[in-house]
Amino acid sequence: MSTFAAVDVIAAKRDRHVLTDDQIDWTIGAYTAGELAEEQMSALLMAILLNGMTSAEIARWTAAMIGTGIRLDLSGVGRPTVDKHSTGGVGDKISLPLAPLVAACGAAVPQLSGRGLGHTGGTLDKMESISGWNAMLSPARMITALSQVGAVICAASDDLAPADRKLYALRDVTATVESIPMIAASIMSKKIAEGTDALVLDVKVGSGAFMKSTDRAAELARAMVELGAAHGVRTTAMLTDMSVPLGTAVGNAMEVAEAVEVLAGGGPADVVGLTLALAREMVDLAGLDVDPADVLASGAAMDSWRAMVAIQGGDPDFVLPEPKERHVVTAETTGVVTHLDAFAVGVASWRLGAGRARKEDPVQAAAGILCLAKPGDSVVFGQPLFELHTDTPDRFAPALEDLSGALELAPPGTAFAQRDLVIDVIRR
Amino acid sequence: MSTFAAVDVIAAKRDRHVLTDDQIDWTIGAYTAGELAEEQMSALLMAILLNGMTSAEIARWTAAMIGTGIRLDLSGVGRPTVDKHSTGGVGDKISLPLAPLVAACGAAVPQLSGRGLGHTGGTLDKMESISGWNAMLSPARMITALSQVGAVICAASDDLAPADRKLYALRDVTATVESIPMIAASIMSKKIAEGTDALVLDVKVGSGAFMKSTDRAAELARAMVELGAAHGVRTTAMLTDMSVPLGTAVGNAMEVAEAVEVLAGGGPADVVGLTLALAREMVDLAGLDVDPADVLASGAAMDSWRAMVAIQGGDPDFVLPEPKERHVVTAETTGVVTHLDAFAVGVASWRLGAGRARKEDPVQAAAGILCLAKPGDSVVFGQPLFELHTDTPDRFAPALEDLSGALELAPPGTAFAQRDLVIDVIRR
Repeated sequence: MSTFAAVDVIAAKRDRHVLTDDQIDWTIGAYTAGELAEEQMSALLMAILLNGMTSAEIARWTAAMIGTGIRLDLSGVGRPTVDKHSTGGVGDKISLPLAPLVAACGAAVPQLSGRGLGHTGGTLDKMESISGWNAMLSPARMITALSQVGAVICAASDDLAPADRKLYALRDVTATVESIPMIAASIMSKKIAEGTDALVLDVKVGSGAFMKSTDRAAELARAMVELGAAHGVRTTAMLTDMSVPLGTAVGNAMEVAEAVEVLAGGGPADVVGLTLALAREMVDLAGLDVDPADVLASGAAMDSWRAMVAIQGGDPDFVLPEPKERHVVTAETTGVVTHLDAFAVGVASWRLGAGRARKEDPVQAAAGILCLAKPGDSVVFGQPLFELHTDTPDRFAPALEDLSGALELAPPGTAFAQRDLVIDVIRR
Repeated sequence: MSTFAAVDVIAAKRDRHVLTDDQIDWTIGAYTAGELAEEQMSALLMAILLNGMTSAEIARWTAAMIGTGIRLDLSGVGRPTVDKHSTGGVGDKISLPLAPLVAACGAAVPQLSGRGLGHTGGTLDKMESISGWNAMLSPARMITALSQVGAVICAASDDLAPADRKLYALRDVTATVESIPMIAASIMSKKIAEGTDALVLDVKVGSGAFMKSTDRAAELARAMVELGAAHGVRTTAMLTDMSVPLGTAVGNAMEVAEAVEVLAGGGPADVVGLTLALAREMVDLAGLDVDPADVLASGAAMDSWRAMVAIQGGDPDFVLPEPKERHVVTAETTGVVTHLDAFAVGVASWRLGAGRARKEDPVQAAAGILCLAKPGDSVVFGQPLFELHTDTPDRFAPALEDLSGALELAPPGTAFAQRDLVIDVIRR
């Protein structure tokens, strides 16, 4: 590997040049080894954010990140492997019913997940509402679980793209998270390193998502689909709406309960619909000829869920924690709900204790919000709109402030057209 | 002072917003106090470099930097104070004859100077060729010297805009030096803090300068003139040519010798011309009615120089060090010199030992280059073009490589028009 001066690499990107393969390999290697200083990497990250990267640069950067760790070999699992990744939203508990559903269809789902930060929840935080359930699995135990159950939801091992952890921590404090090349490289380096054969990306768009515009979401989706292809991972991206929270429940334990409803054949229509849409794409990429709707109806997905919970130490007959305090918001007028802002609901839930301000903070399992009226619903004066849950009732006031204006009501009889949940599907 | 999250300030500039006064004050204060991390400041600096700053932002940033230290009070000096700052060039020894000349005209010149880094020389390095001469003066001794002699050349005290030192070190390793707002703030924070009433800026343009284009040089000049006015310092900027080295001598001791020639009434025409042009502007800003050319011719400037050297511990009858080795480059053909590239000569001189690669490196006092043929000169085959000096003769080869192509020769009789040394004068 050639040696470069860090300042020359930064200057090249600052001056809108394309970084060479050697420069990228050296940068990731030197940064991981501590030879390229944090302040140099952050200046480079800001230059990348503002000046962009070509597809070839992103591919090389991602490959270099993967190269800082191990790439798991899941060939011993004995089933086709397929994973899903969501860019994060409000009320997005889809991984919980989806992983066991796709397992019940015959695939293996190595669902490596993260924790929530900011207004979006984290799958691991949700699963940890289940007493005894353990997010940490060694690669060997993960492969065993995939063979036996067909699905795991667990934390990524420290050995997978370790450069990403260091980079993400730096991006987080330097306002350089919002770089499409860096987001794509971060997500895909971990997913490629986890060893999955195929991947469906749920790229969220809207107020509650990281990407507020369809254009930027599509740009990110295309970058990630390209990266998957470059590394032999069959990858599809679905752009889905995140302007409104998914389902009724927003908050860790509440979302687990809603996921169980879906697995039991019930649950909100949007959660069921998106779960099935993603499952169909995953099953298709896995080369399986089965309709996930039939598998869900058969109860096989619920069986897989219970086995998945049990193999990670949880009691399949778990009882979820209840909040110490509840507060109900009712309609001040009669009308039709025309909008419910995902970002406002996400922030309010975060304030109630469902999320964390700093990485090391704990979350309240029982905190969150039930959204009892969704766009298209007719409500009458006095009808409950939100039910707020928390263990720390002094948080009701700020959460209510966040929620004020989150729900828009039009006069009774106003026409309302439900927006499509799946905005676009991007395949290579 | 309000408290901000560093990441919000960085994001604001990243997203092309104008930073508020409170944000700027907080940023400089928190950085100086170590509360805003180096990696956060470098990301902000890259965002400033790429997205720019308004005049008001630059003014506030500069004021905040001044506020991290003391502002000297030179009112006790008993003369009008006026300083000069050059953005750096090759063979730019102008400060050496200029400071004592303007002192001899009746002003006081608090010439706080720096050391060379890269291909441009530093005034302190040059003066240190004089045995016994000491660059470090306390503010009290500086004021005494200004009262008695009318001129000092010394290092800036650590108390003047200390944020600038920390920021400059960071910019140097993060490829964020080339930001006009940051260059303007860095130069002007120190010049304003040193307490001068008036200031003439020599903004160099061309290959040997920091600013390669007249447009960028003019932008920097206007930013600095504005900053001076905002802080009550009468400021003029002169844009001067640095595509060709100034004078004959490039290198520390050699430049001191050339400065003494000028003070003695001789010296190269370009050095004399620029010294007088800058002196006239300084004398004018100081409100003095005297012609510097008369003062130079009278020998009074040489008297001031000798007093200035002596009060800082140097022997006015100093003998300059001689190099261990010399190498002469001769003309391979007869013709007219049409160009001599300042950058190439600067780099070659640096390689011979006149400059330093790292801040902590020593310089060779005797190393450097005599440019024996300048644009417009006719030369004949075999005539010396350059004389290279060094204590480390293994550096001749790389220096000669830098010099190859530096001098352009046209056939004898080719018409040649000398370019103007002063390109523009920018006043408020």
